[in-house]
Amino acid sequence: MIDFRSDTVTRPGDEMREAARDAAVGDDVYADDPTVNELEARAADLAGFEAALYVPSGTMGNQIAVRTHTDRGQELLCDEQAHVYKWELGGIPQLSGVQPRILDCGDRCVPTPEQVREGYVAEDLHRPGTGLLCLENTHNSRGGVAVPKAHVDEAAAAAHDLGVSVHLDGARFLNACVALDTEPAAMTEHVDSVMFCLSKGLGAPVGSVLAGDAEFIQRARRTRKLFGGAMRQAGMIAAPGLLALENVDRLAEDHANAARLAEGLNGIDGLSAPEPDTNIVMVDSEGAGLTGEELSTACKDAGVSFSAFGEYTCRLCTHLDVDGDDVEEALDSIESVVAEA
Amino acid sequence: MIDFRSDTVTRPGDEMREAARDAAVGDDVYADDPTVNELEARAADLAGFEAALYVPSGTMGNQIAVRTHTDRGQELLCDEQAHVYKWELGGIPQLSGVQPRILDCGDRCVPTPEQVREGYVAEDLHRPGTGLLCLENTHNSRGGVAVPKAHVDEAAAAAHDLGVSVHLDGARFLNACVALDTEPAAMTEHVDSVMFCLSKGLGAPVGSVLAGDAEFIQRARRTRKLFGGAMRQAGMIAAPGLLALENVDRLAEDHANAARLAEGLNGIDGLSAPEPDTNIVMVDSEGAGLTGEELSTACKDAGVSFSAFGEYTCRLCTHLDVDGDDVEEALDSIESVVAEA
Amino acid sequence: MIDFRSDTVTRPGDEMREAARDAAVGDDVYADDPTVNELEARAADLAGFEAALYVPSGTMGNQIAVRTHTDRGQELLCDEQAHVYKWELGGIPQLSGVQPRILDCGDRCVPTPEQVREGYVAEDLHRPGTGLLCLENTHNSRGGVAVPKAHVDEAAAAAHDLGVSVHLDGARFLNACVALDTEPAAMTEHVDSVMFCLSKGLGAPVGSVLAGDAEFIQRARRTRKLFGGAMRQAGMIAAPGLLALENVDRLAEDHANAARLAEGLNGIDGLSAPEPDTNIVMVDSEGAGLTGEELSTACKDAGVSFSAFGEYTCRLCTHLDVDGDDVEEALDSIESVVAEA
Amino acid sequence: MIDFRSDTVTRPGDEMREAARDAAVGDDVYADDPTVNELEARAADLAGFEAALYVPSGTMGNQIAVRTHTDRGQELLCDEQAHVYKWELGGIPQLSGVQPRILDCGDRCVPTPEQVREGYVAEDLHRPGTGLLCLENTHNSRGGVAVPKAHVDEAAAAAHDLGVSVHLDGARFLNACVALDTEPAAMTEHVDSVMFCLSKGLGAPVGSVLAGDAEFIQRARRTRKLFGGAMRQAGMIAAPGLLALENVDRLAEDHANAARLAEGLNGIDGLSAPEPDTNIVMVDSEGAGLTGEELSTACKDAGVSFSAFGEYTCRLCTHLDVDGDDVEEALDSIESVVAEA
Repeated sequence: MIDFRSDTVTRPGDEMREAARDAAVGDDVYADDPTVNELEARAADLAGFEAALYVPSGTMGNQIAVRTHTDRGQELLCDEQAHVYKWELGGIPQLSGVQPRILDCGDRCVPTPEQVREGYVAEDLHRPGTGLLCLENTHNSRGGVAVPKAHVDEAAAAAHDLGVSVHLDGARFLNACVALDTEPAAMTEHVDSVMFCLSKGLGAPVGSVLAGDAEFIQRARRTRKLFGGAMRQAGMIAAPGLLALENVDRLAEDHANAARLAEGLNGIDGLSAPEPDTNIVMVDSEGAGLTGEELSTACKDAGVSFSAFGEYTCRLCTHLDVDGDDVEEALDSIESVVAEA
Repeated sequence: MIDFRSDTVTRPGDEMREAARDAAVGDDVYADDPTVNELEARAADLAGFEAALYVPSGTMGNQIAVRTHTDRGQELLCDEQAHVYKWELGGIPQLSGVQPRILDCGDRCVPTPEQVREGYVAEDLHRPGTGLLCLENTHNSRGGVAVPKAHVDEAAAAAHDLGVSVHLDGARFLNACVALDTEPAAMTEHVDSVMFCLSKGLGAPVGSVLAGDAEFIQRARRTRKLFGGAMRQAGMIAAPGLLALENVDRLAEDHANAARLAEGLNGIDGLSAPEPDTNIVMVDSEGAGLTGEELSTACKDAGVSFSAFGEYTCRLCTHLDVDGDDVEEALDSIESVVAEA
Repeated sequence: MIDFRSDTVTRPGDEMREAARDAAVGDDVYADDPTVNELEARAADLAGFEAALYVPSGTMGNQIAVRTHTDRGQELLCDEQAHVYKWELGGIPQLSGVQPRILDCGDRCVPTPEQVREGYVAEDLHRPGTGLLCLENTHNSRGGVAVPKAHVDEAAAAAHDLGVSVHLDGARFLNACVALDTEPAAMTEHVDSVMFCLSKGLGAPVGSVLAGDAEFIQRARRTRKLFGGAMRQAGMIAAPGLLALENVDRLAEDHANAARLAEGLNGIDGLSAPEPDTNIVMVDSEGAGLTGEELSTACKDAGVSFSAFGEYTCRLCTHLDVDGDDVEEALDSIESVVAEA
Repeated sequence: MIDFRSDTVTRPGDEMREAARDAAVGDDVYADDPTVNELEARAADLAGFEAALYVPSGTMGNQIAVRTHTDRGQELLCDEQAHVYKWELGGIPQLSGVQPRILDCGDRCVPTPEQVREGYVAEDLHRPGTGLLCLENTHNSRGGVAVPKAHVDEAAAAAHDLGVSVHLDGARFLNACVALDTEPAAMTEHVDSVMFCLSKGLGAPVGSVLAGDAEFIQRARRTRKLFGGAMRQAGMIAAPGLLALENVDRLAEDHANAARLAEGLNGIDGLSAPEPDTNIVMVDSEGAGLTGEELSTACKDAGVSFSAFGEYTCRLCTHLDVDGDDVEEALDSIESVVAEA
């Protein structure tokens, strides 16, 4: 099976496995785990912040950020396709009592300064006040779009002018930095926190990192305890996470594979796929008379696995565990499936 | 001062005041208040439901409906301009832990069946499931639009096909029925509950009513207690509320006054106002080089009071306490203000 | 029927009814209602605070106080028999996300300073931090006990030493002041807010008041809007509320009637009732071989209404609508009921 | 440093480390991780349930159980010293909107059937209804007490008679089973779910397990996602967790060491320690004129680490990484510290 379902499916290689075996560990609830401490320090440094916090998942990292940046009863501004709003089980109201205010950011993926100002709600007798702007880069549901630093900066500046904090959901943040050739610390220059996943393109088995200033991370640590995300000898999974930080540059290979995949899909009669920015390929199967569900099911039977994402849309993700040969083999299989349909 | 701020500003007349004085009362927490009981029975009957509940405000009526129709952690579908989402201080997440999913319903004001189906979220591992569709008629922030029964019915049918309940925020529900010449019980034929206000165009001093089936209202009674909305000898304000139910037909006068007001405003150089469906007039002041805030402030000094509603928009509401002469006088004053600006 | 169920059942007399009819009113959501404004000013003055807020119920007044005094996720200290914890449908967690930490205050009804210090939780990695101490005076579930100012002061001082705010649930606060011959403003000297009900012993048909400093009440006004407690021409029920403030001194009659009632009950074979501090009489029916439920049901058939409060306990409340003759008549009826049983 | 702070501090040995290195893994969000699946199956079997769920911490396991067993707005019954209430940052109200109702279970640690019935609240107009009884075994804050199966069964039966579900917080559940010589599946015979930690006495680096019937665990899986506890290639930490399940019998050594530790502490002038049931020793230092804080600080300087737990109380935990020699050495050091004070 060639597995394009998500870049979360990568299996750790020997080096990561041996790092896990050999990790120096301690009880991280007491902040005694040297490997976790090292990972947090290096991740903070990479992302251009004072401090960082290791968390079991990207969802937890985002939801900790939402709760730590807001007061009870405020609003959060985000795109209508944002992961934090759409795919995290209603965590914004459930875990923080916060109301999402929704913007349609279209292809830009992040709001314009004008959208920020229009979506902003001043606290008054009838309205709760805006506490947080949440951006996403790369933008998953819009096709792995790499949002340029200038757009992130402009949205963040507009929010800061209104006294609103800014969190960047960077589940695939380093894909964006690599695709745009922007330093991670430059990309976060004007946001107040970033979450990025070690367990997606970087290939670690478990975990994400939330970075921000030291005071924010101290409070976030408490929210992590509330959510049940404080682990004990977490160095065993933090150690492969440290190696994952070495995998940043090779994300370019995933992007090249995705580009080739999209090119190949476009060459198949009935399919169309826009040129991807990063490692996510969205393919439209309406021309082939197949729904997304039908295409993905038929391909799975032919040894290629990916997910339906809309009525006539499927999403394919490239990652560490698929190489150029896999891409060519998958294209052959998909072509046969479509031809038969 | 001619007061167009809202139809909530009406003062009760002698008849209502004497009804308050003479009301038979009891402790409504024990369901012992005969006047409240009569009001609830008559309101239920008018709205075409088995039962009703008297509540201190429209906001409480809506938020009780949200909580009573949903389970913890679900989503609620509504228009991006819905009062329940925009003007109720984030009550949806705060009081019910529910996440609003937002549709742009444009001039139609309620979603098309297709929008309902697209906004609907099936409960799965990543998504919370949709628990409620909330409609609004008339639609306040979109200009007092009276939504035809057919559009309400279609949206409700689409929701019911998906197993989703439907609540109608009818703060000015009877304005819609009068404007469209539709029986109230026909307008609610396919929704599961309706809230309408006695204290807006109908002229009662205090209170709104939430109507639905008997089992729903029984549970809503408990939510009302939780929110602190259970009152004691509430018959004293329910008695004017009973008289308010006699005021339905005269809403047509408010609509006529609003039509004349819009016509007059359109005749003032620099202002434009679309023809209103009901008693709410939205006026655009950009042509006069005045922001909404500037126009409303200047007019207030000239004896005409209304509210800014957007950068270049103001909202004027007609009601029991303004008559045809007031409208003409107000138009003269506004014309002078704009001419001077 | 002689009705001892609660002092909430009183029906307004002619004077209150005429005050309702004649009330000057305005839209209280815009703070335009002169009668509400006057009531809030006079209630604040009586209770010794800068400002006050009129609310539809005591439950809402308490829950607004809880939310306004606390931050998301804190704890609230109170007695295990406190109304705010026991009888308000879980509003503390539901409406504020706050965790009650429970003390057994026994006959003292309010915690000792030592209990406050032991129950206090400092914010750390595992514990949420204490945000509010909630006292109750008179204490309803413990038998209408009037708690002396010294005990209130000591508990409040202990809380303030720890940086914890103090709210007084004074549903029957003025009963305590009258029974103890303490000025209301003296009783609240060391607490940060007080809620007291106009609709209990004072005889108003609807409403309670929350008093505190001006900044607190400004924030509380917003919480009232969130909970749906902002009403329009509320002057019609605030006017009887103003007259209710004249009824403070006559609470002594209710206390005398309660004392006589308890004395009479003690004289009935099989019943025992401790001497009441105020207007609440708790009677134990175990000696008569009757459960509370059985006693109250049998007496209701004999024309005397009151509530079972525990397995062998009933609660009887005296108020404006029962006089000395009613008490004697009720005692005769109860005696017959017990004799027959 | 001899570390008695908690049995959470144990470091994995070579066998666990190699199991981590060699683990078969997959994406556990897709339920594709064979090692996690095996761990869940074996843990369910051990605990006597149909299914189980691997979670990052005991806190998350408990809070998932609270949310999955209850409806919005209910109450949860537990001991005033319960971990779920006292040490989990107010998660009960924060994450589930549930109100704890508190019982003082004293030395019995779990409520008597009578306490369950008295604490139970039937859903009515004023009260939220009881949704869950939460027991704890061994009981941490009361000194690692092993609660006999009969007491667990009686409390659970009383709850079930009232239609209330029962969760067992078994962070150290297997310590109880070993100490009492009771089969785990027998201990859970009458409860609806159990959470037990792999990362305490069993020595795994990370994780706990929540077990229950299949339908409950399916819903719990969704709550885990909401809380951010769904991990990817979690097999790397589940593999040591599988080995931890082999460590059940050796908990007897920890108990023997704790017994010797308590005996030794009792022999030190000024200290007293009750005989422990399991691996937790509570020592009272008042006789030595030292607060818990002073004793623990002084001992830490002398190479023995443990935590203050009350004004004159410290808690010491035995575990895999302290042996009999460590206990003797620690006793010598503590004796010197006390002698000097």
